[in-house]
Amino acid sequence: MQFLNAISSSVPLLASATETVDSSMVMAAVLLSLVVIYFASKVGGELSNRVGLPPVLGELVGGVVVGISVLHLLVFPEGGTDSSSSLIIAFLQSTAGLTPQAADGVFAAHSEVISVLAELGVIVLLFEIGLESNLKDLMAVGIQATIVAVVGVVAPFAAGTVGLMTLFGIDAVPAIFAGAALTATSIGITSKVLSEIGRLNSKEGQIILGAAVIDDVLGIIVLAVVASLAKDGEVDVTKVIFLIISATAFLLGAILLGNFFNSSFVRIVNRLKTRGELVIPAFIFAFVMAYLAAVIQLEAILGAFAAGLVLEETDKRKELQKQVIPIADMLVPIFFVTVGAKTDLGVLNPAIPTNREGLIMASFLIIVAIIGKVITGLTVFGQPEINRLAIGVGMIPRGEVGLVFAGVGAASGALSKPLGAAIIMMVILTTFLAPPLLRFVFPDPASKTTDTEKLVLDGAGATSLTIEQPQLITAQSPDVANLESAPDSSES
Amino acid sequence: MQFLNAISSSVPLLASATETVDSSMVMAAVLLSLVVIYFASKVGGELSNRVGLPPVLGELVGGVVVGISVLHLLVFPEGGTDSSSSLIIAFLQSTAGLTPQAADGVFAAHSEVISVLAELGVIVLLFEIGLESNLKDLMAVGIQATIVAVVGVVAPFAAGTVGLMTLFGIDAVPAIFAGAALTATSIGITSKVLSEIGRLNSKEGQIILGAAVIDDVLGIIVLAVVASLAKDGEVDVTKVIFLIISATAFLLGAILLGNFFNSSFVRIVNRLKTRGELVIPAFIFAFVMAYLAAVIQLEAILGAFAAGLVLEETDKRKELQKQVIPIADMLVPIFFVTVGAKTDLGVLNPAIPTNREGLIMASFLIIVAIIGKVITGLTVFGQPEINRLAIGVGMIPRGEVGLVFAGVGAASGALSKPLGAAIIMMVILTTFLAPPLLRFVFPDPASKTTDTEKLVLDGAGATSLTIEQPQLITAQSPDVANLESAPDSSES
Repeated sequence: MQFLNAISSSVPLLASATETVDSSMVMAAVLLSLVVIYFASKVGGELSNRVGLPPVLGELVGGVVVGISVLHLLVFPEGGTDSSSSLIIAFLQSTAGLTPQAADGVFAAHSEVISVLAELGVIVLLFEIGLESNLKDLMAVGIQATIVAVVGVVAPFAAGTVGLMTLFGIDAVPAIFAGAALTATSIGITSKVLSEIGRLNSKEGQIILGAAVIDDVLGIIVLAVVASLAKDGEVDVTKVIFLIISATAFLLGAILLGNFFNSSFVRIVNRLKTRGELVIPAFIFAFVMAYLAAVIQLEAILGAFAAGLVLEETDKRKELQKQVIPIADMLVPIFFVTVGAKTDLGVLNPAIPTNREGLIMASFLIIVAIIGKVITGLTVFGQPEINRLAIGVGMIPRGEVGLVFAGVGAASGALSKPLGAAIIMMVILTTFLAPPLLRFVFPDPASKTTDTEKLVLDGAGATSLTIEQPQLITAQSPDVANLESAPDSSES
Repeated sequence: MQFLNAISSSVPLLASATETVDSSMVMAAVLLSLVVIYFASKVGGELSNRVGLPPVLGELVGGVVVGISVLHLLVFPEGGTDSSSSLIIAFLQSTAGLTPQAADGVFAAHSEVISVLAELGVIVLLFEIGLESNLKDLMAVGIQATIVAVVGVVAPFAAGTVGLMTLFGIDAVPAIFAGAALTATSIGITSKVLSEIGRLNSKEGQIILGAAVIDDVLGIIVLAVVASLAKDGEVDVTKVIFLIISATAFLLGAILLGNFFNSSFVRIVNRLKTRGELVIPAFIFAFVMAYLAAVIQLEAILGAFAAGLVLEETDKRKELQKQVIPIADMLVPIFFVTVGAKTDLGVLNPAIPTNREGLIMASFLIIVAIIGKVITGLTVFGQPEINRLAIGVGMIPRGEVGLVFAGVGAASGALSKPLGAAIIMMVILTTFLAPPLLRFVFPDPASKTTDTEKLVLDGAGATSLTIEQPQLITAQSPDVANLESAPDSSES
């Protein structure tokens, strides 16, 4: 059978190869993988939430547990593993009558499908983040937040990239990727902790949130540029400049054209009378933008983010946000669990001597990640009373944006296994450390009720929705819950 | 390159083959395909709705237009077509720098992904239908509706299968498949027309709706049995009996066990505090049930339907229905457009002499489809005043359930191209014909306002939702809008 395939493959190899795969087995493998993914994401997310950490961290750790590092339920061919090491394939062989000959084909096809679903997940995630980011608020956060954000991007990026190249002899492209992963700031985690200690409306809280929002946008531009470099495998300064310009131009152009497109979008949607009359046109727009961004050598997620920013300006925003929530709930966990599952933490096992360099790299990244953000507090001027350390510490957690970097980096093949695992460790540790550190440097809990909940209830507008399903808005979703409150706090 | 692949493929052929496919190109192809699918579904669905036909029919025709029959934007390798006939692949070659060598691999991989997404779509559709079907109402519709339903399943099935085998010499398995496709009744279309002519609460209306609901359940059992036969390619009477028993037992067992599982499900969901706290556990349950149904040789959609029926009994029903709507809006059109795209209507072109047999088969199926349902009105007893013809005509439209048969049949490979196209033509024509016929035999329009809208507004419970997004509930979604109203009408 395989011998015949090998001969016939001299014509159109892949088409004939994939055609022979039993598609009902692929479907069964996809269903099982989704069950494993959802189970891991819910158990991890809930446990994480119980101990006061962001659910996304639990989803990632859940992915690590079911993935290549521990249980081998969810493994992917990229890591060099084949079907025999996948427990899902083994389970299909024992329960569904999958034959060993067909196992490789089913394994490859279902991995491809799960990877595409994960990518759709991160596209929907960025679309949702865009849909929650208000441009006018972004522009209003002021010069101090902008400086904090820019320093918080440039300092860790430069220190991380140069350090990896000079101290560890890493090539330019992977070093730049790792440096870029250091730039992110998770607005969700920080704003949740700030709200818990009643500091969301403090001067420091406003600067942190404003900077974190700008950071998101800068981070996505950096990611688009870096991922494009990774495709070539080398760094060409002209190209870097060109990419920075094109990424910025794409985002600005989308926003400017979006102002004209907005009203047509609303007009079209208002004329539609069948189901999906809002979600489907929105996704057509988001996917077209994602495709355009991908075609001009940037990242698909930049296009989805731009589409979200544009549609945020329409009257349909609230309704669209509400409808995107269940879709994101369904697709986004696939991304985070997959990132965790693909990460082989075994390469950081300290018992094995050859792993030491990876461990030292991870420690180096963590130190740069912390110092590079803490110094941003020093850039605040003209405010002698302000708690500079609190601002710096508030910028530390990387959260989901850092994971997007790690996921895109791993998919591009630019990162070595130890470097990829070191980045994941950096994201996990900065996110774990930030909440207790922030509580420590901000020692005065002003109130017991959380600001976030109050703000959401006050500012949501659609009160009926808030009352019916409070957990949907106030729970997890760093981005949804907290970007909602961020604008309010900057106005007060 | 291909030569090297052919050599290396003597080890794990498919894994290595798929690995070499550029995953960012696959993603780009998937994004473009989704844009085409959504565009076709929205344009088709809206136009269909404007002329008073169900949107799902427009989505199907939209799929035919973008598919193998006309535009060649969305083609699949199953039909024997290769990457060179896919306009999306050609577009990627000209815009995204896809190389001709890589085209076959990208074509195969993206077709696989779209097919899996379509299957997820039909799984979510059946889950949603289950979630809208109330078991107690099903049992309350009475003996007359049950007889109408059973006759409406048995008569067209027997006549269709026997006719195809004896008159056309078709093999048993494809003949049974086509016969099974004749059994469906689209509750959505009929109830919409009945509500438009103000007859939803008439005796006839109640019997038709009750029978159509029972028909849905019988149809899904028939499909599970038939699809299982198609896997073997031959008919074994022992196996048929075994399958009918196992399908019925699966459904009844799920419902009985569901009564115990229900309260645990609600308890678990109430304890979850992070996003997706309802949708994710529900999908874990639905996908596990789908997997189980697939493993015991039935169809995945039977499991999803059973999961929906079980969860309909919980307090979380309303909230879950609301959250599943956007997910279904996103995934279900992929299924219907794909069914249309895979249908080669060229095989029914009357200008080509060899197509004549297919055309005659299509005509035969359409006649059986109409007569087989019209006679069901004759079975109503003890009601001398009743409009028997109206009951029979009300059962004619096949709608989305008929398309599910055609889609599953095509995917199983059991149907020849002409027979598959003939089934699609039968579904389209019965669905087109039913609304005018029903208006003709039910000549007395009682009121101008539509019953459906009134019933939904009265009975929905979550009034705030209804007011905020009336189009979501009253528009398309035959199942969602009208099953909602069906129970109310049978109570009055």
